[in-house]
Amino acid sequence: MSASFNIHAQLLADCEQLGNLDLCSVLLMRDARFPWLILVPRIDGLRDLHDLPTTHREQAFTEVEIASKALHTYASADKINVAALGNMVPQLHIHVIGRREDDAGWPAPVWSAGPAITLEGAELKERASTLKTLVFAE
Amino acid sequence: MSASFNIHAQLLADCEQLGNLDLCSVLLMRDARFPWLILVPRIDGLRDLHDLPTTHREQAFTEVEIASKALHTYASADKINVAALGNMVPQLHIHVIGRREDDAGWPAPVWSAGPAITLEGAELKERASTLKTLVFAE
Repeated sequence: MSASFNIHAQLLADCEQLGNLDLCSVLLMRDARFPWLILVPRIDGLRDLHDLPTTHREQAFTEVEIASKALHTYASADKINVAALGNMVPQLHIHVIGRREDDAGWPAPVWSAGPAITLEGAELKERASTLKTLVFAE
Repeated sequence: MSASFNIHAQLLADCEQLGNLDLCSVLLMRDARFPWLILVPRIDGLRDLHDLPTTHREQAFTEVEIASKALHTYASADKINVAALGNMVPQLHIHVIGRREDDAGWPAPVWSAGPAITLEGAELKERASTLKTLVFAE
């Protein structure tokens, strides 16, 4: 991992930091509508998913699986959406989102579901604490 | 790969089949607005990305890279969007989309850019033929 690595300011503005897995920092999106984690590989200069060095790809996949299973347990998710888009924030980050057939955007992608409903206060604390326990349980 | 594997009917309705890499079938989305490939691992019963057996994950990543580089060459893409959503089509499929800062949806995700503009006729033939050559060049 890069010693000088910094998470992009926009991700820090939108998210709560939960902690670090071996490769990725784990962020919680402050959107009350969807249980939504973001994984940021701590390597400088990555943009597209395939920029991830081959030596780190298995670990990235493992960490997507950890985040997916945490969301599945937390939210009884029917489906996990995984995406590396990065049109607005160029630093490589991987969205891992738990979706339910009764959620605010189903079946459309979350990006088509309108603006975020800010997750804050007790609800933010509860979600951050529970997901932190689930993600870092092993 | 599963001998009995079938690509979901909705994907076949929306896409042109370009051929098979070692793990995934490669489809071209018939949307004139975006150069858009879809990779479908030929294993029965997968839904979420982490359902992919660990023994196939490196190959999946390699094939995402092949598709990404083909789109980069074909469309001088500024950014590659990679996503496994599957809220509508449950069979695991990975979107690999070349994005440009002057495209019809930038910087929003393609799913927020309104309905597809059907890719057909000579334009479809040209895109399918060129991307097929680029994806299967090696």
